[in-house]
Amino acid sequence: MILTLFSLIGDLNTVKMAPAKYHHGNLRQALLNAAEKLVEQTGPEDLSLRRLAREAGVSPAAPYHHFESRQALLAALSARGFQQLGAAMRRATGRQGDGGALERLQAAGIAYVRFAVSKPALFRLMFSGFLTNRSEYGELQRSADETFDVLSELVGETRGTRPSTDTASPVALTAWSTVHGLATLLIDGRLDVPISDRKASALAKEVTRTLGRGLRAP
Amino acid sequence: MILTLFSLIGDLNTVKMAPAKYHHGNLRQALLNAAEKLVEQTGPEDLSLRRLAREAGVSPAAPYHHFESRQALLAALSARGFQQLGAAMRRATGRQGDGGALERLQAAGIAYVRFAVSKPALFRLMFSGFLTNRSEYGELQRSADETFDVLSELVGETRGTRPSTDTASPVALTAWSTVHGLATLLIDGRLDVPISDRKASALAKEVTRTLGRGLRAP
Repeated sequence: MILTLFSLIGDLNTVKMAPAKYHHGNLRQALLNAAEKLVEQTGPEDLSLRRLAREAGVSPAAPYHHFESRQALLAALSARGFQQLGAAMRRATGRQGDGGALERLQAAGIAYVRFAVSKPALFRLMFSGFLTNRSEYGELQRSADETFDVLSELVGETRGTRPSTDTASPVALTAWSTVHGLATLLIDGRLDVPISDRKASALAKEVTRTLGRGLRAP
Repeated sequence: MILTLFSLIGDLNTVKMAPAKYHHGNLRQALLNAAEKLVEQTGPEDLSLRRLAREAGVSPAAPYHHFESRQALLAALSARGFQQLGAAMRRATGRQGDGGALERLQAAGIAYVRFAVSKPALFRLMFSGFLTNRSEYGELQRSADETFDVLSELVGETRGTRPSTDTASPVALTAWSTVHGLATLLIDGRLDVPISDRKASALAKEVTRTLGRGLRAP
């Protein structure tokens, strides 16, 4: 009986440890999913390609086929984070349908803050700046730029000017600073409020309302 | 000759390593000064009370008379940071003299962003949230609250309502988010601009102008 149990455990372990089978593209996504989960659980400091392989149930060498180093993995994870953030903002503005420009800007701002609250460690990693201006991580820079373009376009709409993708414009920067500041204060626990999706949404709505008025004022 | 040189070096080392003499209150300030310098040079991770003693030129036991642990030292450093930030904002608004409320709010916002750019590691430590809601670090929480009260009062002035110190008000939160977001984006290198005091001031001025319009709009 005891022996049977032991061999069963042995079998289960074998099953668990057996390298999972993935198509090439699928494995990259699976590794990024596992990496994102690890980052949220323990922070990016403890993330290694070896540990990632273990968590994803693949051979220790497998992650190296997709990421040449730990740094490259974190860059890819950040780039995907910016793509997710941009997509979330676009989805939120899309749902506003025929709503006015201000409502669309608010929806995007709320999506920005909700994203940060739902994935705080990833959000911190994306903005930690440790890979900023590294030419070998061009995908990261492009993804970040495209995300901010979403905000810049909405700011242009709100002001009634033609959509601008000039992220350096002080007006777009104000919008970005506002939602980024609220997101950061929330996830760093500096506001005396329990952090929840509902609370984050309510605060973001209020804050972007004031912002929108400022953008529209003559 | 060589011997003389060696004994001279020996003497210099002795002089350098001899415990410095401080009055009790002076030593606390000297230790905080040395800690702040170390944090800016190497980040808070590498800061230990032992290393601090070495840098300040005092006995290894000396810091323990003022800070019971590394954590208590970082809490005291953060609390002093908030006091410095609050003082910088008050000085900046004071210099505006008879200027309008909006100019005073702008001056405080610029001071906030300049502080972050001049002491990025300290600013990050202050907001890292690792000591948030720890009752044994009440001084830190009080100092932080007092700093935000400065902003809240200015927001009340700008809106023409009686000064409010309710930091949880959405309007005060918008102001705080805006300057905090700009400060964070700047020190994390996410803006495509070289970080300088002059550039930070110019951006903060633009951003707080839009903010001020939003606060005043009906």
